[in-house]
Amino acid sequence: MSTYAPPVDDMAFLLTRVLDFDRAMTALPGFEEVNAELAVSVLEEAGKFAAGVLEPLNRPGDEEGCTLADGRVTTPKGVAEAYRAFAEAGWCGLSGDPEYGGQGLPRVLQILLDEMISSANLSFGLFPGLTRGAVEAIGHHAGADLKAAYLPKMISGEWTGAMALTEASAGTDLGLLSTRAVPNGDGSYAITGTKIFISSGDHDFGGNIIHLVLARLPDAPRGVKGISLFLAPKFLVAADGGLGARNAMSVGALEHKMGIHAQPTCVMNYEGATGWLVGEPGRGLNAMFTMMNAERLFVGIQGLGIAEAANQKAVAYARERLQGNGPDGTPGPVPIIAHPDVRKMLLSGRAFADAARALAVWTALQMDMAAHHPDAAVRAGADGLVALMTPVVKAAFTDFGFETAVASQQVLGGHGYIREWGMEQFVRDARIAQIYEGTNGVQAMDLVGRKLGMEGGTLPARFFALIKADLDAAAPVAGAALVTPVAEALARLERATARLAAHGGAVEAGAAATDYLRLFALVAFGWMWVRMSAAALALGADAPPALRRKPKIARFFVERMLPATLALDAALAHGAPALMALEAETF
Amino acid sequence: MSTYAPPVDDMAFLLTRVLDFDRAMTALPGFEEVNAELAVSVLEEAGKFAAGVLEPLNRPGDEEGCTLADGRVTTPKGVAEAYRAFAEAGWCGLSGDPEYGGQGLPRVLQILLDEMISSANLSFGLFPGLTRGAVEAIGHHAGADLKAAYLPKMISGEWTGAMALTEASAGTDLGLLSTRAVPNGDGSYAITGTKIFISSGDHDFGGNIIHLVLARLPDAPRGVKGISLFLAPKFLVAADGGLGARNAMSVGALEHKMGIHAQPTCVMNYEGATGWLVGEPGRGLNAMFTMMNAERLFVGIQGLGIAEAANQKAVAYARERLQGNGPDGTPGPVPIIAHPDVRKMLLSGRAFADAARALAVWTALQMDMAAHHPDAAVRAGADGLVALMTPVVKAAFTDFGFETAVASQQVLGGHGYIREWGMEQFVRDARIAQIYEGTNGVQAMDLVGRKLGMEGGTLPARFFALIKADLDAAAPVAGAALVTPVAEALARLERATARLAAHGGAVEAGAAATDYLRLFALVAFGWMWVRMSAAALALGADAPPALRRKPKIARFFVERMLPATLALDAALAHGAPALMALEAETF
Repeated sequence: MSTYAPPVDDMAFLLTRVLDFDRAMTALPGFEEVNAELAVSVLEEAGKFAAGVLEPLNRPGDEEGCTLADGRVTTPKGVAEAYRAFAEAGWCGLSGDPEYGGQGLPRVLQILLDEMISSANLSFGLFPGLTRGAVEAIGHHAGADLKAAYLPKMISGEWTGAMALTEASAGTDLGLLSTRAVPNGDGSYAITGTKIFISSGDHDFGGNIIHLVLARLPDAPRGVKGISLFLAPKFLVAADGGLGARNAMSVGALEHKMGIHAQPTCVMNYEGATGWLVGEPGRGLNAMFTMMNAERLFVGIQGLGIAEAANQKAVAYARERLQGNGPDGTPGPVPIIAHPDVRKMLLSGRAFADAARALAVWTALQMDMAAHHPDAAVRAGADGLVALMTPVVKAAFTDFGFETAVASQQVLGGHGYIREWGMEQFVRDARIAQIYEGTNGVQAMDLVGRKLGMEGGTLPARFFALIKADLDAAAPVAGAALVTPVAEALARLERATARLAAHGGAVEAGAAATDYLRLFALVAFGWMWVRMSAAALALGADAPPALRRKPKIARFFVERMLPATLALDAALAHGAPALMALEAETF
Repeated sequence: MSTYAPPVDDMAFLLTRVLDFDRAMTALPGFEEVNAELAVSVLEEAGKFAAGVLEPLNRPGDEEGCTLADGRVTTPKGVAEAYRAFAEAGWCGLSGDPEYGGQGLPRVLQILLDEMISSANLSFGLFPGLTRGAVEAIGHHAGADLKAAYLPKMISGEWTGAMALTEASAGTDLGLLSTRAVPNGDGSYAITGTKIFISSGDHDFGGNIIHLVLARLPDAPRGVKGISLFLAPKFLVAADGGLGARNAMSVGALEHKMGIHAQPTCVMNYEGATGWLVGEPGRGLNAMFTMMNAERLFVGIQGLGIAEAANQKAVAYARERLQGNGPDGTPGPVPIIAHPDVRKMLLSGRAFADAARALAVWTALQMDMAAHHPDAAVRAGADGLVALMTPVVKAAFTDFGFETAVASQQVLGGHGYIREWGMEQFVRDARIAQIYEGTNGVQAMDLVGRKLGMEGGTLPARFFALIKADLDAAAPVAGAALVTPVAEALARLERATARLAAHGGAVEAGAAATDYLRLFALVAFGWMWVRMSAAALALGADAPPALRRKPKIARFFVERMLPATLALDAALAHGAPALMALEAETF
């Protein structure tokens, strides 16, 4: 089987033709030197690393898995070396703060790098991904001393990060957690408790591992208001900034998982571990959510990454595998890509991945504007759009990503079920992304329960107006056959939004959440297909084949995938009663 | 976690209240003594075996897997003993021909037994399941000598069966297979070739293993018309009917699979193996399809079985797991079954499983009528309906079954991704059912390409008329809120059917196939929900809680699941062009 080909050309198309990256960067102080040409050259290098170093470790890492012996975690052969090479090449700090040694490149590049890493090796990507999340939380909430001691080595990749939130009885509901932090009297705290599902909780890369741990101070109130965030390193930091004494934490076990076997997911025991408060006491969840939002976008990108890789493999197989006569009567055996139903599976994945990548770049641009634009109003506006899109990207990308992995596996028939082809690993690895960093149900609740109400309830209308303006602008080029169905789907979404606003309450919101989020995502994908089609058509007959295919994929999307909005709209119109009628005992 | 509870009460409801099993049996010669009371007592015993013996082996068998050493397959601890106990209890021959020692009970009981086995241990179920398929092929196509020598011991379960069809380059397209059979001059043939994906190809249960092998005779024409079916036992049968010399076949390897790890899926080498022709030369595919149709229904039932088991575990977890405040404001932590989105996941699985079971029983009743009704016209009519439903049951049950496994896993959050809870095994095991015995895409092509055209193209209309008559009859009791949406969905299906008839051709058929099959299945499920609701409502207020819930689940189905028919109808109306526009090179 062919290996992964980084879609840098498609990324370049998005940056130069669809989303006008150069103009966006010009408006951001500090990014004047950043443009698409630079971005593409960086992405080409990143693609080489992903395809050349990380992808070859993906299947062996799944087979070998991680082991725990004598309290030490061993990652699969080659992973530690690859991580060191990744860090030395500077990829850990790509979008990191230059004040602490980062390269300070925009979020747009980060998410495209993340996509390629996720395509090549999802398990691997969690090491730098979680470190970046920890860096964000420390950078936003910790004091100057902690920042100075930890950020440079985390941004360089010398040290890694881990998020220690979940406990056996506290998952979605972190208010139930029981890990305790007691002041030592010297400004530090002694942390005691057991956390589960801790990605990158330990490894054999050398360096330090910086745990961000949610815990309760003595006499803290019950529930989420009693939770604080602490930084607890695996090794205490010595006076010279290097590694000091071993901190009082240990790996209780490695979780035995469905997938991401090259990722050591740990049960962590904190046994009076020394830690320092990050942010205000009782504001731990707030500090953690700084980390979580960036992580949620990252997890969404994992869904996209797996979809891209799985679709590529399925396409390669479908071109080579000869079975049956052609549907047009061509005597067989013909490549199975000739069969309409195989094409349908392949096009579904392609239509998702291309639209998702565009939407990810658009969202990352909003993040860059929210962080760096000189105009506070522009920053606030962009920030709202990022808040709105975060649960959509996390949940929809991982749901469609999983579905794409399953459909791509199906293209290979029995060979897709056999481990050696690697397709079933995509399915197993993709599955976690629908669950961690807040299940997709939690994301949907976040969208309907919190995000729709932002800006006094006007945020969704502001976003929809933006889509409408783009549809109107693109219509002369993209054509009514494409634009009208998307506009109609948007009208369905607006109706569903209005219904939720009119019949509020947590029960109706919860009953609508998942279907509403999917409706929202389909409209957003349609919007991006209109923009991509218009951009490709504007290039005329000289466009390369990869761009001339865009309007054809767009047509597939509106004709065969977008109709799902009809079903979601109709289902949502019925509201909660059918969900709530059954007594818990009679399920 | 609680273990599997066989849904015998629900089965009894279907037999006594919904599908009038007793009246159906009365019309069938030889089944006069069979009634629901007998059936339920048999099913209760079967449920005890499934829950008590097979389910406890399911997780350990997945962890241990099968091994191949020195050419011998070892199944996981306990499996061989369980198989022997299963056979000794008479379960292998439940629906087997009494002429060869079977109990001759109706197909209805067989599929309900199959469901419980599949819920408890899908890997295990393949041993008796494939044996039964082999028995059907031998029973219908082999000569009297072969039948006498093999059927009694296969029906008793002393010997097992395997289907050897697929080769590395011949999967869906069996016409490409290259295994050869050369006459030995004594009525037997020497079979040489390598087959892959052979379930139950070898094991350590003792006894014999009867391989049905597709191969080509010398000078056979190319393609499917050159294929013949041969019976090749692992051990030649001695003069006394017992085990003789070892036949020239060996296990080349065990496939390394995503799931069904307790099932030894073999690469089989036939090295001049001695075999005997089953049926006419060149008619091998025909003989094999006798086996395949029964197997396809069995595989569909596997999807139902996994869905039932996964839903049960998810419900149990959702009742016990405490997280968050109630959506109605109840201070938390509350059981997560209080949350609407969790209910939605649970209800989706329940709405599928109940409807699928009803549809399976209905289909099995048609099979019993097709096999045993004294009136040839009734037999032919029932046979047509079975032919129509076979691809629907196989593909839709396994697709919805997989989706139910995934949704049930999601209910457990991170715990669902961890092996110890068993939910991820359901997902991995369920996945194979969408692939083997003809991928679900192949099933959909069979439905649109062959089945819709049966009886001169009148078969679908005959089936739809049957549904309409039932809807009309049930409407006064079930109510318009339930019946009208199902009738509207049926109208969509009729339109889609008419479009396919008008714009025929393999390209349009292939482009429609998967969506059409799902539309068909949703209408059939709706039909069963109307019948089940009407039956439950007819019992009045005295109905037990498990039956009083039926109309509520029916409401969920029509309000939240049936709207998918809108999307499928709209997508189908666009036809093939959007699928065929892209050149193979530019995917």
